[in-house]
Amino acid sequence: MTDDKLRLGIIGLGAEGGMYANFLAGGMVENMRLGAICDILPEKKEAADKFGVPFFADYQEMITSGEVDAVVTTVPHYLHPEMGIYALDHGVHALVEKPVGVYTKQARELIEFAASKPELTFGVFFNQRTNPLYVDLKALLDSGELGALRHTSWIITTWWRPQPYYAQSAWRATWGGEGGGVLVNQAPHQLDLWQWICGVPKSVFAKCAYGFRRDIIVEDEVNALVDFGDGATGSFMTSTHDLAGTDRLEILCDRGKVVVEGSKTVKITRLVGDEREMSANMDVDAVRRLFTGQLDIAELMTTEEKDYGSVWGAQHCDVLRNFAAAVAGTEELIAPGADGIHGVRLANAIHLSSWLGQEVSIENFDEETYLVELNRRIADEGLFETRS
Amino acid sequence: MTDDKLRLGIIGLGAEGGMYANFLAGGMVENMRLGAICDILPEKKEAADKFGVPFFADYQEMITSGEVDAVVTTVPHYLHPEMGIYALDHGVHALVEKPVGVYTKQARELIEFAASKPELTFGVFFNQRTNPLYVDLKALLDSGELGALRHTSWIITTWWRPQPYYAQSAWRATWGGEGGGVLVNQAPHQLDLWQWICGVPKSVFAKCAYGFRRDIIVEDEVNALVDFGDGATGSFMTSTHDLAGTDRLEILCDRGKVVVEGSKTVKITRLVGDEREMSANMDVDAVRRLFTGQLDIAELMTTEEKDYGSVWGAQHCDVLRNFAAAVAGTEELIAPGADGIHGVRLANAIHLSSWLGQEVSIENFDEETYLVELNRRIADEGLFETRS
Repeated sequence: MTDDKLRLGIIGLGAEGGMYANFLAGGMVENMRLGAICDILPEKKEAADKFGVPFFADYQEMITSGEVDAVVTTVPHYLHPEMGIYALDHGVHALVEKPVGVYTKQARELIEFAASKPELTFGVFFNQRTNPLYVDLKALLDSGELGALRHTSWIITTWWRPQPYYAQSAWRATWGGEGGGVLVNQAPHQLDLWQWICGVPKSVFAKCAYGFRRDIIVEDEVNALVDFGDGATGSFMTSTHDLAGTDRLEILCDRGKVVVEGSKTVKITRLVGDEREMSANMDVDAVRRLFTGQLDIAELMTTEEKDYGSVWGAQHCDVLRNFAAAVAGTEELIAPGADGIHGVRLANAIHLSSWLGQEVSIENFDEETYLVELNRRIADEGLFETRS
Repeated sequence: MTDDKLRLGIIGLGAEGGMYANFLAGGMVENMRLGAICDILPEKKEAADKFGVPFFADYQEMITSGEVDAVVTTVPHYLHPEMGIYALDHGVHALVEKPVGVYTKQARELIEFAASKPELTFGVFFNQRTNPLYVDLKALLDSGELGALRHTSWIITTWWRPQPYYAQSAWRATWGGEGGGVLVNQAPHQLDLWQWICGVPKSVFAKCAYGFRRDIIVEDEVNALVDFGDGATGSFMTSTHDLAGTDRLEILCDRGKVVVEGSKTVKITRLVGDEREMSANMDVDAVRRLFTGQLDIAELMTTEEKDYGSVWGAQHCDVLRNFAAAVAGTEELIAPGADGIHGVRLANAIHLSSWLGQEVSIENFDEETYLVELNRRIADEGLFETRS
């Protein structure tokens, strides 16, 4: 090291990797700098030269070169686990892009290997976890002020993707190259945030539409109904074909409710008490007044509205900064790599439920059946090797 | 008749029946007047005296008395079919309260009987069908301007009901007396509107919560995921325990989208073309500009917002007026009784799916299994006779 900054190696200089390189080159992350760049395309060496860092065509060579303290894996999802494992196995910290893997067996292998290297930092790039809106929402729910979760729904259809988008890479929107569609590519942030804030569901029933409004083989629309246990339920809807997309998250708890619109505005309703107790203790006269319009239900709650505006870009830098701080031992990781399993498992369970036409357990997820079913689709597709 | 007005007999002078009596006594329905009142509680005779109309303790006597041209059945849901059949069988027009029956077998018997009496008018009291907002929305969808349905969701949790509400009547929120909870009592209007506007689903998977936040035996929360066929799906969520209730309907079509909030405001988005064609025809440069923020997606659509305000009360009078006009042969019925089967069947299918833990067909609904399962719950409850 020429300074105290963590030297990051970027594996894969595409849109995402290029963005991180620019952030680091621009000095936007105080405790991290660009260490090296790796890409299988030789022409990317020009960019590395421009940034003044070494270039590698082989990620293993970069990891063992001594030029980097950590790597980030901005490559097709299937490759995240093997690259994460290789880095950790060679004493290099690993910041893995979401999703941490395509199927839980693969994600678990990475997570279990990382657990055997506690001296190294292993994170997942859930940049939405640094969005102040979701940070505050997580804190509100964790505080217990609103009581237990009763219901939640998220409609997230702001992922409009036109047909030419899917033609940009041979691996995109394939079973063998990407392992799915909107669940694996666009929605992982929400699949993570939802579980980070509301908890991990125990089961799911889902309908996925495969190649519904796009000429692709994987899912471009998902409707899922989950069970969090103890009576709490949720629904999750996402697609890539809604030009006038919706982003609306609703969370109902015993003592209040939160509605988030457009990942920008938050309306928090706080009840004056526990809803079930308020219901049970309401006297007959109050009920009569309620139904004759003489009791204003608004008296039983207070509301607060917040507007967070847009914070694009800052979140990615926050994740990089927090990762370097975690390596330095001065901060806890905001998104530990092990947390990445939840989003992968929920996405897998949604696929599996839609394939089997029945509700499937997340708590006791059948990862073997998932892999058999996934491989059957990879084989039918005929573009990539099956997985193990 | 002392004038040209249709003489309506009200069966059951409770909250709803009393409201209709007041509307008629107040001259709010130009072509209908109060003919007689029937109630099993003798003390309701006072009200009939006040209105200056005959009182009957037996609905059959009222129907055959010659005092009424039509009846409305504001009585527990199970009784609607037998009263409707009796009226029609004795030459009296029947306006049946929603739901037209509790289970499809019962509803079908009424509808089939009514079909054998084409000279008589048979309607169902779906007063929301006269709400200008939904009238306009139905016309918009029927016009084809927005193209085919692709997805719809309705969150309707503005039905907050405190515990004492459920104690008001012995039949309320029981299997034997009412046949269900929020699906049968509060949500039938939305179950009807949804299908009236979006079409009849072919199958449903649902989770119902029975006695979840209320001390009742029937459902107080419902999460349903439906399949309309041809790839179109929908979700429906309702409950009686959300004090800060939501009423949000979203309808996505090929050429646009509609979002209705609070049954008051409507936002209509019209795309400049068919979404799938716009997607397929977008050139690579436009895609690049889209992802680099240089193409504003808003240029691809126009939006219109409408505020309808609140129209409570007027809708009930509209239904009564339209019914009398249909009897007179001057208007088509807005809510023909036969349409009532859809809401009953969807509610039944939602129950059945939640009981069996699997997706069930609506197109080929297994009404026998439903009745067996319903009767099992009526028998376990032990308060009322089973049904046939």
